[in-house]
Amino acid sequence: MKKQKLSVVKIGGKLIENENLLQTFLRSFVDLQGHKILIHGGGILATQLSDQLGYKSTLIDGRRITDENTMKVITMTYAGYINKNIVAKLIGSGCNAIGLCGADGSSILSKRRAVKDIDYGNVGDVETVNTEFICSLLTQQITPVFSAISCTKEGQLLNTNADSIAAEVAIALSKDFETHLFYSLNKNGVLMDAENDKSVIEELDFVLYQDLQAKGLISNGMLPKLHNCFHALQHNVNNVYVGGVDVLKSGIKQTKILN
Amino acid sequence: MKKQKLSVVKIGGKLIENENLLQTFLRSFVDLQGHKILIHGGGILATQLSDQLGYKSTLIDGRRITDENTMKVITMTYAGYINKNIVAKLIGSGCNAIGLCGADGSSILSKRRAVKDIDYGNVGDVETVNTEFICSLLTQQITPVFSAISCTKEGQLLNTNADSIAAEVAIALSKDFETHLFYSLNKNGVLMDAENDKSVIEELDFVLYQDLQAKGLISNGMLPKLHNCFHALQHNVNNVYVGGVDVLKSGIKQTKILN
Repeated sequence: MKKQKLSVVKIGGKLIENENLLQTFLRSFVDLQGHKILIHGGGILATQLSDQLGYKSTLIDGRRITDENTMKVITMTYAGYINKNIVAKLIGSGCNAIGLCGADGSSILSKRRAVKDIDYGNVGDVETVNTEFICSLLTQQITPVFSAISCTKEGQLLNTNADSIAAEVAIALSKDFETHLFYSLNKNGVLMDAENDKSVIEELDFVLYQDLQAKGLISNGMLPKLHNCFHALQHNVNNVYVGGVDVLKSGIKQTKILN
Repeated sequence: MKKQKLSVVKIGGKLIENENLLQTFLRSFVDLQGHKILIHGGGILATQLSDQLGYKSTLIDGRRITDENTMKVITMTYAGYINKNIVAKLIGSGCNAIGLCGADGSSILSKRRAVKDIDYGNVGDVETVNTEFICSLLTQQITPVFSAISCTKEGQLLNTNADSIAAEVAIALSKDFETHLFYSLNKNGVLMDAENDKSVIEELDFVLYQDLQAKGLISNGMLPKLHNCFHALQHNVNNVYVGGVDVLKSGIKQTKILN
């Protein structure tokens, strides 16, 4: 039997921070045919709230540590404010959605990242995606909206990279669905020249990726993102796209990642 | 066929604010046999966060108005911080739970309260409880945990009384379940003398309630709560109990409300 189509869409950055852009994006998300799942990060809202509350960021080697206060702020902004506002907007557009963090329905369980050189604090890596539960939602025509928080089976909430969650959710569900994974960035795709937003690479395969990486042409922010893209393709996800805020629109220049 | 048992439990006040009390309560909640649903308010956490952020409360005739900033803070604390921490604790105790606000899965849709003398702002009254969706969770042995936020079908999040949500959820599900409704208060039940925590009325029927009310012996805070209790009993909820933080424990003095 032909598998049904599922789109897994990750949004972040300015889409989350700009009400008008978000509204426009959600319209195209609602119009997307077939089953769909939305995964969002938090943009700068968590940092802004931390600053307002006078919480000091702990940085080690320039990397932010998720201490108790940061985790509290992330839970409030990601799982609370951003998540519920997206869900409410979707409900208002006639798309029955449900906002989840990884704890909800044990949907995304993770392991706290082991301390090697640096203790990143309350940060986790996905271990299991509860596909049975997520499929039961999709079957009921309910669209899951995940915030980038997972949970250990011992009940600890953990800050978790939204790009990785998107890849792991898409991979886990590719058993049951023809799965399409979309990453929406501030840039219009993977750029040949980071300064030129028109230099979108339309097709990026692993050979070209390695070549560009060797030449130092892929920015530090893009490397882990592309790692997630190839990881997904190598684990049965059918298609992966990297684009801008209008990644879901057809006829828009964006990057298709090829295995 | 005999209906299965469902317990709907509302917690608030010091239970939410005190980590140790909450932990103890959640242990007895996990031990509760049969299907169950938890509904929580936000205690003083929302007020504390509003104060920290410098948001001024708007009061009209001494009543707090839910303006935009207040709604934002409520969404962060109720649907984010408190809700996800309860869910994570339940997951860690082996109880598969899901945190929801009324928008999620269109579970509790409401209508913005009409402006008569006072415009309370973003405040709503429950219109429909999506029993089909909630039953599908219960059937999967997933325990819903609701924060006191509902949503209009147009997609507006609204601050909604947690006692009323508990009553309406219990009423809606009494079609399918033998339903028991529990209210956990800071006091140990309905008191004959508000100053004496040992003066718990063990059984309170509607005649006694009206008598006590006429004599001015029921406090202003307790009146709407008892209204919800009798409303639930009059709409097919099987049993209603009002007790303290250990309302779920047997052999504890508390108030049973009788029709």
